[in-house]
Amino acid sequence: MNAAATTIKVLKQPTSTDWIDQAIANMDTILLDRSHCEKKAAGNALRLICRYPSHEKLVRQLTALAREELEHFDMVNQILQERGIPLKPLPPPPYGETLISNVRGEEPKRCLDFLLVSALIEARSHERLGLLGYHCPDEKLAKFYRGLMASQARHYRIFWLLAVESFSREEVDQRLDELATVESDILSTLHPQPRIHS
Amino acid sequence: MNAAATTIKVLKQPTSTDWIDQAIANMDTILLDRSHCEKKAAGNALRLICRYPSHEKLVRQLTALAREELEHFDMVNQILQERGIPLKPLPPPPYGETLISNVRGEEPKRCLDFLLVSALIEARSHERLGLLGYHCPDEKLAKFYRGLMASQARHYRIFWLLAVESFSREEVDQRLDELATVESDILSTLHPQPRIHS
Repeated sequence: MNAAATTIKVLKQPTSTDWIDQAIANMDTILLDRSHCEKKAAGNALRLICRYPSHEKLVRQLTALAREELEHFDMVNQILQERGIPLKPLPPPPYGETLISNVRGEEPKRCLDFLLVSALIEARSHERLGLLGYHCPDEKLAKFYRGLMASQARHYRIFWLLAVESFSREEVDQRLDELATVESDILSTLHPQPRIHS
Repeated sequence: MNAAATTIKVLKQPTSTDWIDQAIANMDTILLDRSHCEKKAAGNALRLICRYPSHEKLVRQLTALAREELEHFDMVNQILQERGIPLKPLPPPPYGETLISNVRGEEPKRCLDFLLVSALIEARSHERLGLLGYHCPDEKLAKFYRGLMASQARHYRIFWLLAVESFSREEVDQRLDELATVESDILSTLHPQPRIHS
């Protein structure tokens, strides 16, 4: 099974049509939020590198991932500029913070949880960028989202592989299942402000 | 005057021969510390992007800078791997924390101070990588340091230009002079552990 199919499979619930309607009605905000998502993803990778500085493979792979996220951040910002949408802060939805609050405190479970939470965020981004790529009426933007979508599936796989290389497959599967339930529960109520993870 | 000449000129005191002797006697640790420096520089750029998310030029230029720092981080880590030096944490010298403690709390002075502290760190890196490039007995490593040195001068100039574009030249010059004195004072006593900024 390829990475793209796996990311969709890991999610407990598919995105609602309410989210699609909300996103399509607020394409400028969603694009701005995507810029914040890329920045946050780069920051998350860098924090994991700082937290596990002796983990050679994690450091190498998340350095490449952070570089790609920053490249995408720059790409999204260029599109925002072309469209005359100014950069500005956006209050984040509760999604990320709630997921992180489920990371267990003691190592090595903490590491496993960080990897799986990161994997789930990438999986959901993959699914939603795919929906934007399909439903967005602006074909140029739709194509851009489809391009980003592919990298989210790869990123999901990087985090998942880092997890299964350090933990037993059984432990990974069980914890991924638990965290995926949390992830879908957070999104079961549509956040009033349009966001990639509302 | 080119950027390289400017970075040296801004420093209040040149690096002591004691530091050169300490660094040359501990080349493995210095190389490992350089890896941490590149990571911290990327993190610093990303923090400034997050702190000033509406400053389009700062965001664009520091995104490019962070991408370059991560590229260098990866390059240093590859050299560490080739030489069989494992990645591991290194207790930082007081340099960075002491410099940051001099950043004033209220905006816009806070922004100016962050830019100038970042500029000074790049200027000192430029000077010291030049010294390593000149004194390092391992010619391959010496060449690598000389390559990195050039980018530090460019980075100094990026921070300095961001400062003079938002603040009066008089204010920038005065504050840079004050912070450069702090910077040289920190380094006037050699830190017992070999570091790029010991």
